Amino acid sequence: MDLVASVLAGNRLALARLLTQVENDTPEGRLAQDELYAHTGRAHLIGVTGAPGTGKSSLVNQLARVYRQPPDGGEPKRVGVVAIDPSSPFTGGAILGDRVRMRDLAGDPGVFIRSMASRGSLGGLAAATASMVLVLDAAGFEVILIETVGAGQAEVDIARLAHTTLVIEAPGLGDDIQAIKAGILEIADILVVNKADRPGVENTERSLRSMLQLAHPARRGNLHHRFEEEVVGLAETAPESSIWQPPILRTVATEGAGMVELYGEIARHRQFLAGSGEWERRERLRLQSELDMLLQTALVSRWRETVSQVAYQAVVDRLIERNISPRHAVETLLDVKDKERS
Amino acid sequence: MDLVASVLAGNRLALARLLTQVENDTPEGRLAQDELYAHTGRAHLIGVTGAPGTGKSSLVNQLARVYRQPPDGGEPKRVGVVAIDPSSPFTGGAILGDRVRMRDLAGDPGVFIRSMASRGSLGGLAAATASMVLVLDAAGFEVILIETVGAGQAEVDIARLAHTTLVIEAPGLGDDIQAIKAGILEIADILVVNKADRPGVENTERSLRSMLQLAHPARRGNLHHRFEEEVVGLAETAPESSIWQPPILRTVATEGAGMVELYGEIARHRQFLAGSGEWERRERLRLQSELDMLLQTALVSRWRETVSQVAYQAVVDRLIERNISPRHAVETLLDVKDKERS
Repeated sequence: MDLVASVLAGNRLALARLLTQVENDTPEGRLAQDELYAHTGRAHLIGVTGAPGTGKSSLVNQLARVYRQPPDGGEPKRVGVVAIDPSSPFTGGAILGDRVRMRDLAGDPGVFIRSMASRGSLGGLAAATASMVLVLDAAGFEVILIETVGAGQAEVDIARLAHTTLVIEAPGLGDDIQAIKAGILEIADILVVNKADRPGVENTERSLRSMLQLAHPARRGNLHHRFEEEVVGLAETAPESSIWQPPILRTVATEGAGMVELYGEIARHRQFLAGSGEWERRERLRLQSELDMLLQTALVSRWRETVSQVAYQAVVDRLIERNISPRHAVETLLDVKDKERS
Repeated sequence: MDLVASVLAGNRLALARLLTQVENDTPEGRLAQDELYAHTGRAHLIGVTGAPGTGKSSLVNQLARVYRQPPDGGEPKRVGVVAIDPSSPFTGGAILGDRVRMRDLAGDPGVFIRSMASRGSLGGLAAATASMVLVLDAAGFEVILIETVGAGQAEVDIARLAHTTLVIEAPGLGDDIQAIKAGILEIADILVVNKADRPGVENTERSLRSMLQLAHPARRGNLHHRFEEEVVGLAETAPESSIWQPPILRTVATEGAGMVELYGEIARHRQFLAGSGEWERRERLRLQSELDMLLQTALVSRWRETVSQVAYQAVVDRLIERNISPRHAVETLLDVKDKERS
């Protein structure tokens, strides 16, 4: 049985192997994604983002547990976790994180956790995440938690493209961290004040509430609408039913406190998505964004094949000598291509 | 006098206007960059990165002051600051930051500070930063401090492309934050333990020292070499003289403590860069990276002109219906282009 068939049959070892192929962007990994794609589209993608120190990882682990034993007595969900670890552009980080998590949820065949260190290039991270999510979705994981540190553009962009985005806060973090939340508030479907047993939780919640009022003067639907118009080029008007008030919840993830309520709010958001047409809108946004990333990569690599390294380096030399501006260098290189073609 | 000439003549208002044009990526802003590019290449670019809560902004402000009154009795340097504020994918953040900074360094014509909120798209941040730096360099700022939060891939990539990269740490931050430093340590030319009057400074310094030994087994030159080989495709061997041991310094930026030593180490690193050929190597890396970003954008926008929105959306529809995989969608779209061409 080949790797793809094994993954579809639920073989964990095959899944781990395939994810490595996918992360390394091998030809085998790419072919597998083509075959698996038809099996995707069933998972609920949940982005979890927040500044360092907010306890995101514990919260993600607890959420995974809750989905394994739903408090409403429903069927246990199969849970995939993709944790994006910005700690290392080169190495490290991710491996340790995995080990700590494994201890928590070890031996549960309904949970699969994959940490991923950041990539060396801009955009590589988002593409790799999309591929991981594709594979886990096809492998039958019904809930996929995508954990990112909400302090980087790339990481926020990744979380934003989930169906449901949780933004995690905590009391008692420095001013620097407080400043970060102003921006990521706008992408939040659900706000979580974790470590809510710490002093200052009322202040954190109050300031979140007032920032929320500032950040969402016209509410959620409008914002998404604006994002689509600007970034994606859709211009339909958001229907009235697409109004969602982001709730603020308190949790103490290390003790499991507040997780049932969080589970409930996520379920409510999913119903909202389904009822308002937002689910389809977000699917389109996400897939179009993936397509654009792949297109970009394909265009660059096709172009690279048409230009010799010597011609390219000659242009870089002229750039370094300030003989041509970066934009003229681009024009020169694209003309080289056109000339070599014709 | 046009905007470019005014900027070259040192007009601050013209500079502020031009930077806005550049940030908004207007045609006027692009033309100005072409004209200004020949005047660049003189500034010392210093990346300053660190996790939230380490006091980067205070440190950058203090550094600006030190360059205005060099402790070695040298000429005051003109200092530009580009602060990349990840707090907001949409709005906010940056403006408040500017106001706080302005109070500190207000009225000094030798300092120019520009904060920039993150962009809505992957890669946009790096491109916008490069453009800002180009303009400030041409405008005669001799030292340009580029401040980023070292917790995101994009932000780390930006800091990495400076001539000299400072990584800021502080005692007493959470485990989550400690984990981040493992990765950014590898891009550090100089390590700064800020807030060094806090308890735990010895621990922070000790752990930095041991992580440094792990992270740099073959030292700095080797790492850069590896980065070049992998990302940029250069394969020259680093000369022996390109060995730099990243020093660890203590500062209390809010009180100005340790700033003279930091100034000294940055000067020493600059001498090392000049003497070892690293300056030229990093210039090439940086300009090549800028060129590649612009090429990518140009290739995508040229391609977009060749494909109708209707044809594009039809492919997206098939993607959403799971009729074709993302990779097949790309192939289909690129074939559409080839067909429309021939």
